[in-house]
Amino acid sequence: MHSPTIERRGIMLVLSSPSGAGKTTLARRLLTSERGIEMSVSVTTRNPRQGEVHGKDYFFVSETEFKRMRDAGDLLEWARVFGNYYGTPALAVERALAGGRDVLFDIDWQGAQQLNEKVAQDLVRVFLLPPSGEVLQQRLEARAQDAPDSVARRMSDAAAEISHWAEYDYVIINSDLEASVAGLSAILAAERLRRERLLGLSDFVREMQKAL
Amino acid sequence: MHSPTIERRGIMLVLSSPSGAGKTTLARRLLTSERGIEMSVSVTTRNPRQGEVHGKDYFFVSETEFKRMRDAGDLLEWARVFGNYYGTPALAVERALAGGRDVLFDIDWQGAQQLNEKVAQDLVRVFLLPPSGEVLQQRLEARAQDAPDSVARRMSDAAAEISHWAEYDYVIINSDLEASVAGLSAILAAERLRRERLLGLSDFVREMQKAL
Repeated sequence: MHSPTIERRGIMLVLSSPSGAGKTTLARRLLTSERGIEMSVSVTTRNPRQGEVHGKDYFFVSETEFKRMRDAGDLLEWARVFGNYYGTPALAVERALAGGRDVLFDIDWQGAQQLNEKVAQDLVRVFLLPPSGEVLQQRLEARAQDAPDSVARRMSDAAAEISHWAEYDYVIINSDLEASVAGLSAILAAERLRRERLLGLSDFVREMQKAL
Repeated sequence: MHSPTIERRGIMLVLSSPSGAGKTTLARRLLTSERGIEMSVSVTTRNPRQGEVHGKDYFFVSETEFKRMRDAGDLLEWARVFGNYYGTPALAVERALAGGRDVLFDIDWQGAQQLNEKVAQDLVRVFLLPPSGEVLQQRLEARAQDAPDSVARRMSDAAAEISHWAEYDYVIINSDLEASVAGLSAILAAERLRRERLLGLSDFVREMQKAL
């Protein structure tokens, strides 16, 4: 049996969620279980932490360099968080997509909105929700144990993020991690079969028609 | 862990392909492996064949009754094939969708177009292609062995159907049956997670926000 390989354009898979919904674990599981998808590597002005590798975890740049990139339009989205700048370099993403590789983005609603303004046709937006408000509250309190005064801040941040759920294409309620991994994998597999991403289909069908 | 059940609207999953691409086998496999999806039962004026059950394989009706249904707007799509009428009764489909059950349609591009004019928001259209023109040709010739004069007719019908590939949301090239079953299952699983089908999400999020 023939096994044709159809050229396709990669997907920008955006995963957003309030802190405490399990996004980091889910992203890691997807990257481990699926081939052909890689994490987007951001540019940042913050200092590298122990063990972080330039070009793998982040591209570490100076504030001057960051602003030059931003002002030159080299970033698909950017944000300033606690005095540090973070952004997504456009060239690396375009290179992956053009090569038929998918890119996973762990960004918040503001980043997702910026991407949607620039590259909507490549975007698949998934919002992850915790199973309930009580569970989220418990997790945020557990995370804030080192700095208990920040629970209120974490709660209001989570509420703000959740309020943007309706701007996403898909919503996964993370009650069961295995089911969530399966759901996210299904979204990736399905979006790879979307007609408009299968760039080589016109030629493939034209060849087929010749035989008929 | 909580396991919330979010009310959702069912999907109309349309599978079209030229004859000889493996559509019937693929549809049967999907119905066997997936829960919550059922085959659409058509209304027809043709006579029941040996073993066919009214209400399961088809609703067998008179031509008068069929035309009454059609003219009353009770059919989502209809066609006349070799002198017999076939149609999709709207009520049964709406009942399934409103109950959160998905419905699979084995129809051609003309049926898919009619559905798209009436119920586009519920529709997920999948087009199945054979791995190559040569393979399709061989299969059509094998099928036509009982009536060899119809090969040309089968070929031109297949060519006509294939020419409508670009009207579908997803395209699966059926090189490997297991991969095609996995692809179709992924499309179903992903579409079930589409935000706009998850009718209960607004309430779910509102409840969650209360806890924050």
